[in-house]
Amino acid sequence: MRGYTADKDDYLKRLRRIEGQVRGLQRMIENDEYCIDVLTQIAAATKALQAVSLGLIDEHLKHCVAQAVAEGGPVAEEKLREASAAIGRLVKS
Amino acid sequence: MRGYTADKDDYLKRLRRIEGQVRGLQRMIENDEYCIDVLTQIAAATKALQAVSLGLIDEHLKHCVAQAVAEGGPVAEEKLREASAAIGRLVKS
Amino acid sequence: MRGYTADKDDYLKRLRRIEGQVRGLQRMIENDEYCIDVLTQIAAATKALQAVSLGLIDEHLKHCVAQAVAEGGPVAEEKLREASAAIGRLVKS
Amino acid sequence: MRGYTADKDDYLKRLRRIEGQVRGLQRMIENDEYCIDVLTQIAAATKALQAVSLGLIDEHLKHCVAQAVAEGGPVAEEKLREASAAIGRLVKS
Repeated sequence: MRGYTADKDDYLKRLRRIEGQVRGLQRMIENDEYCIDVLTQIAAATKALQAVSLGLIDEHLKHCVAQAVAEGGPVAEEKLREASAAIGRLVKS
Repeated sequence: MRGYTADKDDYLKRLRRIEGQVRGLQRMIENDEYCIDVLTQIAAATKALQAVSLGLIDEHLKHCVAQAVAEGGPVAEEKLREASAAIGRLVKS
Repeated sequence: MRGYTADKDDYLKRLRRIEGQVRGLQRMIENDEYCIDVLTQIAAATKALQAVSLGLIDEHLKHCVAQAVAEGGPVAEEKLREASAAIGRLVKS
Repeated sequence: MRGYTADKDDYLKRLRRIEGQVRGLQRMIENDEYCIDVLTQIAAATKALQAVSLGLIDEHLKHCVAQAVAEGGPVAEEKLREASAAIGRLVKS
């Protein structure tokens, strides 16, 4: 059981759509499509990945982190530290 | 012929690798892997897409935009305006 | 008392340094300095602001959110929702 | 003369406003204002800096880079390489 388990199908659907977008990008490159159009599609795929990340962070805070915090102790601290590090990676990616 | 044509195989290889990363993300979700590990992989895929974008922008400036500018006139202006808009979308994505 | 209260002096020092960077940017523009050098300095100021944000989010999770979660109830939910929204704004800024 | 020279006053006005935002952030921290409100203001200042960057990049491409490209030779190549590097720093900041 993970924070995202209840929405698993939704996440899988979104990731399959992103996979389709990345395959579409390959076709665009193969067909020598215009650079700016390729860039627009990459921006769309990147935004979609970012939205998945934000959804996962939200679920993670609401479930894994909240549960650890409710239990307290070193595990709670570790979960909080880990969540902050993940947020940092997300902001910088 | 596009700015990226000379490096087409390299771009295709990178996009296929990103497609594989997105499929890997689906497997992670299917297997209920730990949220933070999924997030780390999404950050990697996002960074890889971003690197493709930066490469395409670079080629686009060096080829399409530079050629239009060398020819001058309204096409040059249009290409420059379009490149700036694409950079803006990239920065905000 | 806020999550950042214990590190207040550190945050103030960092923000004063950022204020100095932004004043430095004005001097660069006044002196017609090279665009690329101005851009490099803006990137440095932006990164410094981002680091302040990440620090504040970290403190906020460790203090305000953790405390609300330990107490439970609707306040905890509201704090979690609010933290996720702030992370979203940070990622998109 | 720089790409931004014609809009110098506008850039200075925007940077003074950003300086004011950063001073406002210091007051918020001094007054122990709520972390989330501080974060919202940092996101606004970051977006404002980013908008200045995008404006400068646009002017730089339209003036310095376009002129170098029109003249051709190694300076043009150097300007293009430099612009791409600045775009990369902007995307990652």
